[in-house]
Amino acid sequence: MGGAPLVSLLTDFGIRDTYVAEMKAAMLAVDPAIRFVDITHEVSPGDVAGARYFLERTWRRFPVGTVHLVVVDPGVGTERRAIAVSREGHGFVAPDNGVLGAVLDGADVVELAIPDGASPTFHGRDVFAPAAARLVTGVALTSLGTSCADPTRPVLSHARHDDGVMLGHVVHVDQFGNLVTDLPVPDRVDIVLHVGGRDVTPIRRTFGDVAFGELVAYVGSAGTIEVAVRDGSAARMLGLGRGAEVRVMPREP
Amino acid sequence: MGGAPLVSLLTDFGIRDTYVAEMKAAMLAVDPAIRFVDITHEVSPGDVAGARYFLERTWRRFPVGTVHLVVVDPGVGTERRAIAVSREGHGFVAPDNGVLGAVLDGADVVELAIPDGASPTFHGRDVFAPAAARLVTGVALTSLGTSCADPTRPVLSHARHDDGVMLGHVVHVDQFGNLVTDLPVPDRVDIVLHVGGRDVTPIRRTFGDVAFGELVAYVGSAGTIEVAVRDGSAARMLGLGRGAEVRVMPREP
Amino acid sequence: MGGAPLVSLLTDFGIRDTYVAEMKAAMLAVDPAIRFVDITHEVSPGDVAGARYFLERTWRRFPVGTVHLVVVDPGVGTERRAIAVSREGHGFVAPDNGVLGAVLDGADVVELAIPDGASPTFHGRDVFAPAAARLVTGVALTSLGTSCADPTRPVLSHARHDDGVMLGHVVHVDQFGNLVTDLPVPDRVDIVLHVGGRDVTPIRRTFGDVAFGELVAYVGSAGTIEVAVRDGSAARMLGLGRGAEVRVMPREP
Repeated sequence: MGGAPLVSLLTDFGIRDTYVAEMKAAMLAVDPAIRFVDITHEVSPGDVAGARYFLERTWRRFPVGTVHLVVVDPGVGTERRAIAVSREGHGFVAPDNGVLGAVLDGADVVELAIPDGASPTFHGRDVFAPAAARLVTGVALTSLGTSCADPTRPVLSHARHDDGVMLGHVVHVDQFGNLVTDLPVPDRVDIVLHVGGRDVTPIRRTFGDVAFGELVAYVGSAGTIEVAVRDGSAARMLGLGRGAEVRVMPREP
Repeated sequence: MGGAPLVSLLTDFGIRDTYVAEMKAAMLAVDPAIRFVDITHEVSPGDVAGARYFLERTWRRFPVGTVHLVVVDPGVGTERRAIAVSREGHGFVAPDNGVLGAVLDGADVVELAIPDGASPTFHGRDVFAPAAARLVTGVALTSLGTSCADPTRPVLSHARHDDGVMLGHVVHVDQFGNLVTDLPVPDRVDIVLHVGGRDVTPIRRTFGDVAFGELVAYVGSAGTIEVAVRDGSAARMLGLGRGAEVRVMPREP
Repeated sequence: MGGAPLVSLLTDFGIRDTYVAEMKAAMLAVDPAIRFVDITHEVSPGDVAGARYFLERTWRRFPVGTVHLVVVDPGVGTERRAIAVSREGHGFVAPDNGVLGAVLDGADVVELAIPDGASPTFHGRDVFAPAAARLVTGVALTSLGTSCADPTRPVLSHARHDDGVMLGHVVHVDQFGNLVTDLPVPDRVDIVLHVGGRDVTPIRRTFGDVAFGELVAYVGSAGTIEVAVRDGSAARMLGLGRGAEVRVMPREP
């Protein structure tokens, strides 16, 4: 590896407070060579499912050896456990509240001890950051805590098939107002997508395949179907947000 | 050079989504030693001219060898070309939509191929980031693509002289509500500046040269005339934004 | 040290403009190996006291050798001095407007010269950043400027005791709407906290010690008393912001 130890950060701390910097300083106190990439700190406060989605779509893109520090932690200081996870050469450190739900399959998991003196309201700085720093600088996962056989596995909703109709949901609305769904690439082309009372068909390649201001469905950069408005906001045009239902069905002849 | 390869990033992706991190991860996959400086990700969605302005005022300040990755790309996935540019030891990678318009003079330009499998809606991650990573780690520009003789050159509006009057425009409103214009430093001191129905005179050194709440014109940090309100917002006081006309004329005796 | 020279940045420049990047570029021009950690750039415009608070709660957490670049500078270009400070192995560079008020005790202080050609409205880039870069790469403080015996020391308000009542104030409202006060940890447990017309008692460990939507007081991660609403915003519930009075008094039996 030509690079220094790398930690990605994913939190709901925003960028106005000093919380993210306090976590980075805590990691640099363990090893000043650690480098950081911010995934985002704009997860809605306490939105565990939103953070899980962001992590799921990004972690594999980082180099093997990266440790992902995920702190969306409404239960901080309560009985909820703190965990560290190893999978396919990547490390993960987070509260055990389901935020790592999409990376637990086939992973090794340990429960972290809460050090005496850790602030009961800021485990990000006093529990998770030091553990991430130690993990990324080569400390073995098993040295960080005790084996954990039953990490929290949220019931993940997935798009599902029902009588020729694929039913999914909007899982994210991005900066441009594009609606990201959990619908996989359809295996046939003569389909129609129902969303917000509108029919969109066919699945296009990109925004530019429709006229300005028109709705367009396409396979997005996360590999699932997205709905956008060319040079506009689909979220605003359709009045939809996360959780909205989206259906794909065969196009009537 | 004491430093690692350096890439600056300038996009309209905002900081809430994972798009910027996905681009950084794609670059680290090429070389984990690459370092990043974010210029800004808060370009208004699709605002090519705004991004061009931001790039123009910053690129020369970075060390020679820096590659500037500029992704404001409303035409992503269409026929618009992807280009990489070399000028005065700096590299640039961007869509060929005019966003590099201010750096093309005397530059070498190549057209990038679009790799099979690139997401048609996220060339930032799948086309531009890998090219920037290769360029910053020493791959020759000519190895990145085929020579491009006619990159898109937008018609750039500049301040112009007209009968003793210099006519310019507000090109940016900054965080403090300061109005940045494209008017160069006047060559005489007895001038008056007309903006938003107000006369401001003379050109001062800094905010503190006027009383609290007063309008002040001065030569800004980009080398052009700016208009501010001491401890206030000129944009709000004058109700002006980008594109507003500003005139400089001789002061009547 | 395994790490490169490290500079933290704390400004009111926001993240939309290129000002922060221009400062980083100016530092990289001095030494391309310098690394950066952003504390925050979302200090309210000109809010010297707010920046002082952010610096006070973070600087000691960084490794010895870090230089903290603090630019909240409404008086830029006026007679206000520019200073560099050394304390306990940390460096600080800032305008002499009180923003370093919490780190001056026992510190060495020099006044920086303003280089010819420095933009009178952007000392952050042309005065402070180059000085920070030189300081972090090993230039002696005394080589950066002339000794300064009387840096600006703001009158800092502290919580005070009065007849068994401890009177303090909200010093910060964070991203979650938590109210951070300047009240130290009480030396007795049978106390009640008055804030915004409400009584909160006793002091708890963490949010989870009360029911959803309830007010809770606890010792926060900065070591002072904070007031929060579990899974809500105390600032919104109480309609309070920075400066609001908070009282701690013995609980009536």
